[in-house]
Amino acid sequence: MEPNKIIVRGYDLMDLVGKHSYADLTYLLWRGELPSQSQSHMMDALLTACLEHSLNAPSVDATRFVASCGVPLQAAVSAGVSAIGELHGGAIEQAAKILQEGVSSMKKTQTPVNQMSEEILQDYRDRKQRLPGYGHPTHTNDPRTRKLIEISKETHLSGAHVELALTLESQTDKFFRKHLTLNVDGAIAAITSDMGFDWRLGKGFFIVSRIPGLIAHAYEQAYFDKPYKAPDWSEIVYTGLAERKVPDRVGE
Amino acid sequence: MEPNKIIVRGYDLMDLVGKHSYADLTYLLWRGELPSQSQSHMMDALLTACLEHSLNAPSVDATRFVASCGVPLQAAVSAGVSAIGELHGGAIEQAAKILQEGVSSMKKTQTPVNQMSEEILQDYRDRKQRLPGYGHPTHTNDPRTRKLIEISKETHLSGAHVELALTLESQTDKFFRKHLTLNVDGAIAAITSDMGFDWRLGKGFFIVSRIPGLIAHAYEQAYFDKPYKAPDWSEIVYTGLAERKVPDRVGE
Amino acid sequence: MEPNKIIVRGYDLMDLVGKHSYADLTYLLWRGELPSQSQSHMMDALLTACLEHSLNAPSVDATRFVASCGVPLQAAVSAGVSAIGELHGGAIEQAAKILQEGVSSMKKTQTPVNQMSEEILQDYRDRKQRLPGYGHPTHTNDPRTRKLIEISKETHLSGAHVELALTLESQTDKFFRKHLTLNVDGAIAAITSDMGFDWRLGKGFFIVSRIPGLIAHAYEQAYFDKPYKAPDWSEIVYTGLAERKVPDRVGE
Amino acid sequence: MEPNKIIVRGYDLMDLVGKHSYADLTYLLWRGELPSQSQSHMMDALLTACLEHSLNAPSVDATRFVASCGVPLQAAVSAGVSAIGELHGGAIEQAAKILQEGVSSMKKTQTPVNQMSEEILQDYRDRKQRLPGYGHPTHTNDPRTRKLIEISKETHLSGAHVELALTLESQTDKFFRKHLTLNVDGAIAAITSDMGFDWRLGKGFFIVSRIPGLIAHAYEQAYFDKPYKAPDWSEIVYTGLAERKVPDRVGE
Repeated sequence: MEPNKIIVRGYDLMDLVGKHSYADLTYLLWRGELPSQSQSHMMDALLTACLEHSLNAPSVDATRFVASCGVPLQAAVSAGVSAIGELHGGAIEQAAKILQEGVSSMKKTQTPVNQMSEEILQDYRDRKQRLPGYGHPTHTNDPRTRKLIEISKETHLSGAHVELALTLESQTDKFFRKHLTLNVDGAIAAITSDMGFDWRLGKGFFIVSRIPGLIAHAYEQAYFDKPYKAPDWSEIVYTGLAERKVPDRVGE
Repeated sequence: MEPNKIIVRGYDLMDLVGKHSYADLTYLLWRGELPSQSQSHMMDALLTACLEHSLNAPSVDATRFVASCGVPLQAAVSAGVSAIGELHGGAIEQAAKILQEGVSSMKKTQTPVNQMSEEILQDYRDRKQRLPGYGHPTHTNDPRTRKLIEISKETHLSGAHVELALTLESQTDKFFRKHLTLNVDGAIAAITSDMGFDWRLGKGFFIVSRIPGLIAHAYEQAYFDKPYKAPDWSEIVYTGLAERKVPDRVGE
Repeated sequence: MEPNKIIVRGYDLMDLVGKHSYADLTYLLWRGELPSQSQSHMMDALLTACLEHSLNAPSVDATRFVASCGVPLQAAVSAGVSAIGELHGGAIEQAAKILQEGVSSMKKTQTPVNQMSEEILQDYRDRKQRLPGYGHPTHTNDPRTRKLIEISKETHLSGAHVELALTLESQTDKFFRKHLTLNVDGAIAAITSDMGFDWRLGKGFFIVSRIPGLIAHAYEQAYFDKPYKAPDWSEIVYTGLAERKVPDRVGE
Repeated sequence: MEPNKIIVRGYDLMDLVGKHSYADLTYLLWRGELPSQSQSHMMDALLTACLEHSLNAPSVDATRFVASCGVPLQAAVSAGVSAIGELHGGAIEQAAKILQEGVSSMKKTQTPVNQMSEEILQDYRDRKQRLPGYGHPTHTNDPRTRKLIEISKETHLSGAHVELALTLESQTDKFFRKHLTLNVDGAIAAITSDMGFDWRLGKGFFIVSRIPGLIAHAYEQAYFDKPYKAPDWSEIVYTGLAERKVPDRVGE
């Protein structure tokens, strides 16, 4: 940056604005280069697939509670962003790590994809851990997954990571006795890995995609909803100690 | 600070630790001097009166939602602190401002406390605004208020601001047709004003007092409660638009 | 939302993904309707014009300090979002409020734009307040402003609010004895007002536009930079009290 | 909680206020019981030993940057709390985990403290990892450590965990070829472990102790310091790409 000029990754920002989309410039900031048209199209799909999920998301709940307290818009959004943790969006990072390590190991050791997939599933079954990026409490066949995988094929951007991800999905029945569908976190993990993104940027996709919704929720809560309403007394069950007297302090 | 030595407001921190309480050192950081024994006793009461309020507080709700997402402890506490806004703890600041301006004006213009109180109430009634520090959705006679005022009298720390606060309370019936009890925010505002605290530090008392509880809630939620549970579907009412088709983009 | 289906403002999200851009869906969430092609193009420009501003932004500094502490990505981004306050991005809201009230008053009272502009400037000069949306510490002729106004004209989206904003700029010399350029906050305020956005959503544009950069900074700081380095001792000047002894507590 | 009554861990809050200190009630919230006088004294020391560390702390820097942006007090404090991560206060948790696992293993396997200490140091040396709770960039002999350990002995609260912590310190020379002093994080970890606190509450002590200072910094920055000042241009070195032209988009 210098007076009257802003340079982003070597380009004058003013030569980009009006010519390149928000998704393009997100790609530029995160990768250092402008995307091709395929990559640009894919980025827009990746950043919109997680756009909204109604009140059924802890980041939205946190945003709305804070927004009900008489705070500026950004404070409520900030609280919602805090909620994007390992159990809420974090599976993208974790799944991308598994896929990137898997594909890297396949290349080094010339392991076929079926075998690598079995090794991963075996390992998770043995350690009794959930496989990140698979299964969803509500969606048995996540529509977002199908859409994103479809676009990744149309744009010829899917590769070894998507292949491994789908192979894992097809073998979950065998290892876990029930089908675990590749969820939207897993799909984003696979596609961004094929596009060359570091797995440690995984949460970035989820954060960007949820921000417009968090802003909409904060705005609605702050200006159009009622202020904070105490939960119904009859619904709260006190599970603490019975009432007791404060003792006199004795001894040491 | 220098190697092996930490100076706080001129004192070696090691000469303070073990001799002075947490409440004392909070006073030192905020005022620049150590408190007298009366001030020390009052500080402890002020910092503990708002300690907890069960789940019935948006800062606790925000903390718990974030804590359910697989984040480190401080991230959940940070979201709870964000919620301490104008409608949740913020009345301390607002009430202290009114009281400090009122007392300052009383001194300058030699106005008696009854008249000043009436002017303030008249002003709020005319502008149809809620008087900060008065009334509570649950407590008609806030036990925390009585306790704090009592201690402020015992320690001889109450003065013109507490007097104005109590006068306002006694006259609310006349101006608002119902009794508005001085609530805990108003009591803290009045007492800290008599102790010489700037009203802009008002929220500080509420933040400090709520922190141990927010930590306890985050700890309990993260390690002993179930992970985030979606709200019951049958309880969510969709009030948005009816389903519709995405149109082809036409014209400009 | 229902199992295997996500509805946004009446549309099936899956009919939107791959067809509409991130900017389009941000518009949909905030306005309830999909944008026209002109509005879509304008949205992308509005959301990218503030993309980055190097280290010269307190939100970036806050993000980087937090990112250096061993925290997950979202915690650092959350701290950066907290910084988007009245003095950092907040001028969009404030300027949009002035312009929306100005244009509304012009219509009601049939006041010409020159006169309305003079009334506003007079008011700010009399109250010795800074006019939000005008002037910049670095850019005397903000290139982002020119670009955005140009696109708003090309897309025929500029109207009475942009006209008032430019009139205000042209008259600043007369009222403040120096030229105050319409800055990027002011330009966004004017154009979004002409597009029909509520001024209370003003900060939303700034938050969305800064998020990819905050993520890039957090990622770079956490994984490629050195951990937190104490400031150079020789550069810190202690301006506090001289060292003193902790007194014995005496009397009350 | 019920109207006009607030119950904390079985006690009426009003029977506690004015009788018990802030440190006492923090202990009550975190442990479920009131502390003895020794425990109460120790708590106050633990919660004040980390009170302040000048500008030399990333939580303070983050708080001050956010406070300079025109935000309410709690927003700046919230950003500072976000910074209390693995590399800033987080060593308390990590060190307490090591000590609690070590003492538990000593009891089960009847291992003497010297041998357990050697096993731990060997393990960290082999894995080339830093031992949490030992060493400090500035303090070669952390005065806070000595003070806290001293009080833990006076109050007869120190036990097996403190013994293991001190044994580890005495053996660092042998394993790492330089003396690593037990730092304040390690001391808090050892003493709170002897008091029976779960290691997962470790950061809670650091958060509580830093809050009054974060509030003081936010207050000072917001009301008495200059607004955000851009870093000196001459000090920023642009290490990005050389300026280049935005290409026309070609091919896919």
